Amino acid sequence: MKDILPAEMAVRIYVTNLIRRTYSEFGFSSIETPAVEHIENLLSKQGGENEKLIFKILKRGEKLNIKEAVTEDAVTDSGLRYDLTLPLSRYYSNHANELPSPFKALQIGPVWRADRPQRGRFRQFTQCDIDILGDASSLAEIELILATTTVLARLDFHGFTIRINDRRILKAMAKKVGFAEEDYDKVFIILDKMDKIGRDGVREELEQAFSKEQADAYLSQFPDTADNGTDAGNTAPDTADKGSDAGNAASVNAGGTGSAQDTVSGENEFLSASPLPLIISTVEAVRSADFKIVFDPTLVRGMSYYTGPIFEISMDEYGGSVGGGGRYDEMIGKFTGQSTPAVGFSIGFERIIMLLLERGFTVPGENEKTAFLVEKGISGEQLSNVFKEAAEERKNGKAAGIFTMKKNKKFQKDQLAAEGFTDFREIFLRNG
Amino acid sequence: MKDILPAEMAVRIYVTNLIRRTYSEFGFSSIETPAVEHIENLLSKQGGENEKLIFKILKRGEKLNIKEAVTEDAVTDSGLRYDLTLPLSRYYSNHANELPSPFKALQIGPVWRADRPQRGRFRQFTQCDIDILGDASSLAEIELILATTTVLARLDFHGFTIRINDRRILKAMAKKVGFAEEDYDKVFIILDKMDKIGRDGVREELEQAFSKEQADAYLSQFPDTADNGTDAGNTAPDTADKGSDAGNAASVNAGGTGSAQDTVSGENEFLSASPLPLIISTVEAVRSADFKIVFDPTLVRGMSYYTGPIFEISMDEYGGSVGGGGRYDEMIGKFTGQSTPAVGFSIGFERIIMLLLERGFTVPGENEKTAFLVEKGISGEQLSNVFKEAAEERKNGKAAGIFTMKKNKKFQKDQLAAEGFTDFREIFLRNG
Repeated sequence: MKDILPAEMAVRIYVTNLIRRTYSEFGFSSIETPAVEHIENLLSKQGGENEKLIFKILKRGEKLNIKEAVTEDAVTDSGLRYDLTLPLSRYYSNHANELPSPFKALQIGPVWRADRPQRGRFRQFTQCDIDILGDASSLAEIELILATTTVLARLDFHGFTIRINDRRILKAMAKKVGFAEEDYDKVFIILDKMDKIGRDGVREELEQAFSKEQADAYLSQFPDTADNGTDAGNTAPDTADKGSDAGNAASVNAGGTGSAQDTVSGENEFLSASPLPLIISTVEAVRSADFKIVFDPTLVRGMSYYTGPIFEISMDEYGGSVGGGGRYDEMIGKFTGQSTPAVGFSIGFERIIMLLLERGFTVPGENEKTAFLVEKGISGEQLSNVFKEAAEERKNGKAAGIFTMKKNKKFQKDQLAAEGFTDFREIFLRNG
Repeated sequence: MKDILPAEMAVRIYVTNLIRRTYSEFGFSSIETPAVEHIENLLSKQGGENEKLIFKILKRGEKLNIKEAVTEDAVTDSGLRYDLTLPLSRYYSNHANELPSPFKALQIGPVWRADRPQRGRFRQFTQCDIDILGDASSLAEIELILATTTVLARLDFHGFTIRINDRRILKAMAKKVGFAEEDYDKVFIILDKMDKIGRDGVREELEQAFSKEQADAYLSQFPDTADNGTDAGNTAPDTADKGSDAGNAASVNAGGTGSAQDTVSGENEFLSASPLPLIISTVEAVRSADFKIVFDPTLVRGMSYYTGPIFEISMDEYGGSVGGGGRYDEMIGKFTGQSTPAVGFSIGFERIIMLLLERGFTVPGENEKTAFLVEKGISGEQLSNVFKEAAEERKNGKAAGIFTMKKNKKFQKDQLAAEGFTDFREIFLRNG
């Protein structure tokens, strides 16, 4: 896990505030849930790989009997949340009566995963999710996409691509060529590798897992212009970065150079029955930011809880995903017993920060900063006057800090300059 | 642990930003440390009651052998931080070379304590600390007090009292009447109860623990005007609330009705050799906010790591402490091996929020909010136009949310009104 130094922290605070302000303009309300959830909730509701990554918390007091215990279950009662979606579902089930319907929630907060540490990946990291609970219509998807792209544009990200698919299209395409329902997840995991191992790699894995016939039949449903990549012209997302981490690299743009509208007009037989044409055409008609939205039948997204539209942001600059989400209409019902439609969009907060720092981003409109360096031993009225002068600076909109003057004054000033202090006043002990 | 609903969350975000802005004007830099620290750091460095309150985290993978394990140590490797001071010391020891000296740090973040839940107390709560590391002079205490009182004044808190004492005065007074050094903590724990059990109660406990002579001799050093409470006039902090929680209720104002200056002039023989007169007189000369600062020889503060001045904010409105701090010059050296003077001031963030909510505080300058209620089935240009109209509202500085119209429109509007929406536009499906 990572300590945040002042320079990065300033950027994180700026970005957090910009995100909150923007989503608030779209009518989202900030909420917060505790870091710790009951272990049963963490373990039972979502399944999948994430469960292995939970930091579990030891029972306390009389409930704990380590000597007799054999299993992890016997000694733990809670754990650190590993995403913000499960806590939101639990939150909504506890507080639905106190919340409007539909409820538009914004969460920015840390999550924890006991992953092997990697470059640029930490075991505690911030997630930033917006969710709309209680709206089954495509208004929700459209609003999420417009709000999120507005945030990115305000952070000076342009030319990115929203790739969109629908879980039901994925399933229909698998069903059509005769895959058994229990094999869908296996098929999708292989399909998801398209950007890393290419069409031929996917074909090979499908053949091994199933049969040559099924592999051919399945792949024939996907237009093959796109994975040739650069032929398709420079509007396709950068697929050159094959080395990036699993599940996050940009997949191919199935629409090739065509607009999503072209794609919508019939290349995929399941598309017109889905809500995607309405979502895509409305976003295209309304967007003010500079981005594309394209139908991508190869988009899978890992989480098995998705039930409808799924989407992901691909950004050339990063060569991978900087966010994604989808509809998960079944999940909240598991907590409340009452089915509640839900759809969410998560921004990759840590990646956004990393990209901004790599760009040399500096927070606009920072206060000018004055440092008062005060010689040791100053007291009485002379000392009070230093503090009064500093207060005067602050009244004039500057920041002002008072510091005991060090022996190595030059070094001290260099350090303070690195912290953004530009104006230095030295106050020496008055004789007599 | 507690879920935060939207109305409280708006206040928390507003207060957090106001605190950050104000401390930043005073030259403090925001930093952040992870929620999880190594268990050895949490257990060994501070000692005291807090250790029992640690949420410990289970080891993972091969390192974990529950069957063989007998002790908590064998199965845990880390824990959730229970304050922000220990993580700051660890942070400074890791990053001193990258930080200016003195370093002025601001931390706002959650901490966790496995306390028995009580009304208004939660197992996860936010702390807000400023610390100055590397300045042994009283400039640091003065700056902390002025910055913190400025925050409180900007949150519309007035008429509160900063009580200040010095660990060295506490010790000198105990030494003078012959207490053994190893008994000091026991003495101070009893003295600390002055506000709850009164002077007679303290006398009784001291007599039981030591002797009548020592109790008399010790107590004769403390002016006895104050614990008669209301006699001393209405400038003394409210001591009526005897029921509040341990260690937090306001202690008596030892200065009675006199100003701190009066107190400074010789009532306590150890005072003049301490830095308190300089701190008090400078704060009094410079302050713009409406508060008092008084020497209080009965102020103890619990943490044994304090080495010099200690202080606490008493507020009539709350009948207890809403913040405190002190100098802890020995602690960072335990991590770095190199002695580093340090002093910190913590605001009781959760209490401030509670007081503001009780007052009916509302966040100033919130956006006007427009809700678009859209009938089911609207699509095409009609739908795009709704989103365009909402974008127009946002350009004009309003917030705008788009919602699918519910059957019970009146109820939906009531809920949205409770979320701050004031303007409602209904869009019905156009015929033909």
